[in-house]
Amino acid sequence: MENFSFHNPTRIEFGTHTEQHIGQHLARHGVRKVLLCYGSERIKRDGLFAQVLASLAEHDIAHVEFGGIVSNPVISSVREAIGLARSSGVDAVLAVGGGSVLDSAKAIAAGVCHPGDVWELFIGQAPIETALPVFDILTLAATGSEMNSGAVVTNEATREKFAINSPHLFPRVSVINPALMQTVSRDYLVYSAADIIAHSIEGYFTARVQPRFHSRLVEAIIHTVMESTEILLADPANYAARAEFAWAATQALNGLVYAGTSGYSYPNHMIEHSLSALHNVPHGAGLSVVIPAWMKWYQQHNPTQFERFAKQVFGRQSAAEGITALEQWFDRIGTPTRLSQLGIGAAELPALLENVLGNARYFGVADIYTRDVAQHILSSAL
Amino acid sequence: MENFSFHNPTRIEFGTHTEQHIGQHLARHGVRKVLLCYGSERIKRDGLFAQVLASLAEHDIAHVEFGGIVSNPVISSVREAIGLARSSGVDAVLAVGGGSVLDSAKAIAAGVCHPGDVWELFIGQAPIETALPVFDILTLAATGSEMNSGAVVTNEATREKFAINSPHLFPRVSVINPALMQTVSRDYLVYSAADIIAHSIEGYFTARVQPRFHSRLVEAIIHTVMESTEILLADPANYAARAEFAWAATQALNGLVYAGTSGYSYPNHMIEHSLSALHNVPHGAGLSVVIPAWMKWYQQHNPTQFERFAKQVFGRQSAAEGITALEQWFDRIGTPTRLSQLGIGAAELPALLENVLGNARYFGVADIYTRDVAQHILSSAL
Repeated sequence: MENFSFHNPTRIEFGTHTEQHIGQHLARHGVRKVLLCYGSERIKRDGLFAQVLASLAEHDIAHVEFGGIVSNPVISSVREAIGLARSSGVDAVLAVGGGSVLDSAKAIAAGVCHPGDVWELFIGQAPIETALPVFDILTLAATGSEMNSGAVVTNEATREKFAINSPHLFPRVSVINPALMQTVSRDYLVYSAADIIAHSIEGYFTARVQPRFHSRLVEAIIHTVMESTEILLADPANYAARAEFAWAATQALNGLVYAGTSGYSYPNHMIEHSLSALHNVPHGAGLSVVIPAWMKWYQQHNPTQFERFAKQVFGRQSAAEGITALEQWFDRIGTPTRLSQLGIGAAELPALLENVLGNARYFGVADIYTRDVAQHILSSAL
Repeated sequence: MENFSFHNPTRIEFGTHTEQHIGQHLARHGVRKVLLCYGSERIKRDGLFAQVLASLAEHDIAHVEFGGIVSNPVISSVREAIGLARSSGVDAVLAVGGGSVLDSAKAIAAGVCHPGDVWELFIGQAPIETALPVFDILTLAATGSEMNSGAVVTNEATREKFAINSPHLFPRVSVINPALMQTVSRDYLVYSAADIIAHSIEGYFTARVQPRFHSRLVEAIIHTVMESTEILLADPANYAARAEFAWAATQALNGLVYAGTSGYSYPNHMIEHSLSALHNVPHGAGLSVVIPAWMKWYQQHNPTQFERFAKQVFGRQSAAEGITALEQWFDRIGTPTRLSQLGIGAAELPALLENVLGNARYFGVADIYTRDVAQHILSSAL
């Protein structure tokens, strides 16, 4: 095992009705005025918004609304929110939504405290010295952002989907009520399953040092995601499965499966970020296309771990059978496995390839993901 | 899954040479003078003590020594240390040792801030309002105390081995260098394996609500402990196995395998605490005796989970085969499975029984562990 530091200070409040106490959590952290970030207006129709406002009012916490955050959130929206946060003098950011809203909230929280443009933080031109405290009520389990210190945002002008990461960005309190996720659409459920699996397998396959405990933990996460996805497809109101799914999502990217590993990279995310930056596809849908194509190419680099995956996750003997089994499982649950299903054809490949090569430089893996390799993976995903 | 809060603020610094930076961690937390707690004088012979002092000196941190803490630490020693901490005006407690030293450090940290006698905190006569910050350099992986908020201490006068628990007792920084554990004796290695397995299976078998992810996580921990123990018995200097063992120990009792479960209890610890309170046996050795006897009796209460254990951990079909396999594994690694191996015979049972019944009241499970049940489990362990 490699040397590591592990410190995850996020407080998780998990379970039914937990969103009703959000005001109390904010008050405990001394928050007086909060920027309330959300996506669609649906939360105003389903009662969640009213509940949040009631809890804030109960604790005399003022709020300023910032709605309309979209999937694959964009930096222009973050900039707008930073302006609003500054002019209204909020002292915290509260995200009510899924990973896109939460990642935007983190970018806003960091951006408010940065004198320059917020994108400078994404391209390494300035460090994140501090940030407003971030809180969230999660309505979609997938990204793991609720218990980590990262955020991913797209710059529409440059077509770059880049990330920030800082200890200042761990949410202080994340409220996870699986019951709020029971209305997630069938499509977003299966995209989320692909996203969680992607988070756990990036390190599983790519790490140069991969402790056995970590492999077992990843397998536990994948088994749990697969099992609960299948239950939820048949019975969307199954709370126990919704809870297992949500907690597996949190565990997949809270640092635990990476602590003590080394040399890992995020190639599936790297390639997918180009898909969603250029074609605005749902992140998880992009991932379920990239993963099988990437696995078929990458297996030669780590045959032992691919055989382990096949055996432990699917009870199959060979690496190839394991990859096929995962691809077939994606097909069965209904998340795409071919670029064509995303409306992306051969004509789109050249632009996609250039974007992937840019990401490879950004991710520091340009030596592995050369033009030939990226071309091969993308073509095989057509 | 049950509703839960999860918040574990301990920073883990894991790996080789990490102990050399202890002064830096203390300085970051503003510590100026520390009570340095340890057990035997061995750390003065093997160079660890000198390294710690050098790191403290480098950061101008003064220290007061408190050595001689024994396994199954006693409250008289904690009281003595509290006096020393007060008279010398330390502002933090640093444990250098295993679970006994760390648990003592936590009791000292809480006791210094409590105006009454420290044992009042153990018997619920007073709450833990605050505590000095606790830091540690772990030299034995077993108890999980390095990443949780509990501590167990024995009152020699009353023969009670009781616990405290408070969010104030999470170590601020825990330094885990598996290389420091390479000199742990063969006996303490196998006792520790039993302790870690006990931590993970208490909830696994007793929880009324036991999520599937949690079962899988427990199985991942047990597989890792068994595998790394076997490697270490053959090759004590194997760093990778030592690291896997240590990290599994931390994961077994840092709250993760219990978050979202409900109705669990710690019957094996409850019974074992009587063994070590009355006969001062090593905690893990007592546990490996209690576990098989307890399992044979308890399996009727949760047959499905016992079958799962048999299958997932040992590849066996029936609950009984799983229990036998664990007992045989304990025998094979050389940790005791009978009271007689601990020098405890039938003549000692009556006093043991009374102590267990007292613990059952303290643990709130007197309705399950009646005189007849406790007598049955103890007798079957002879």
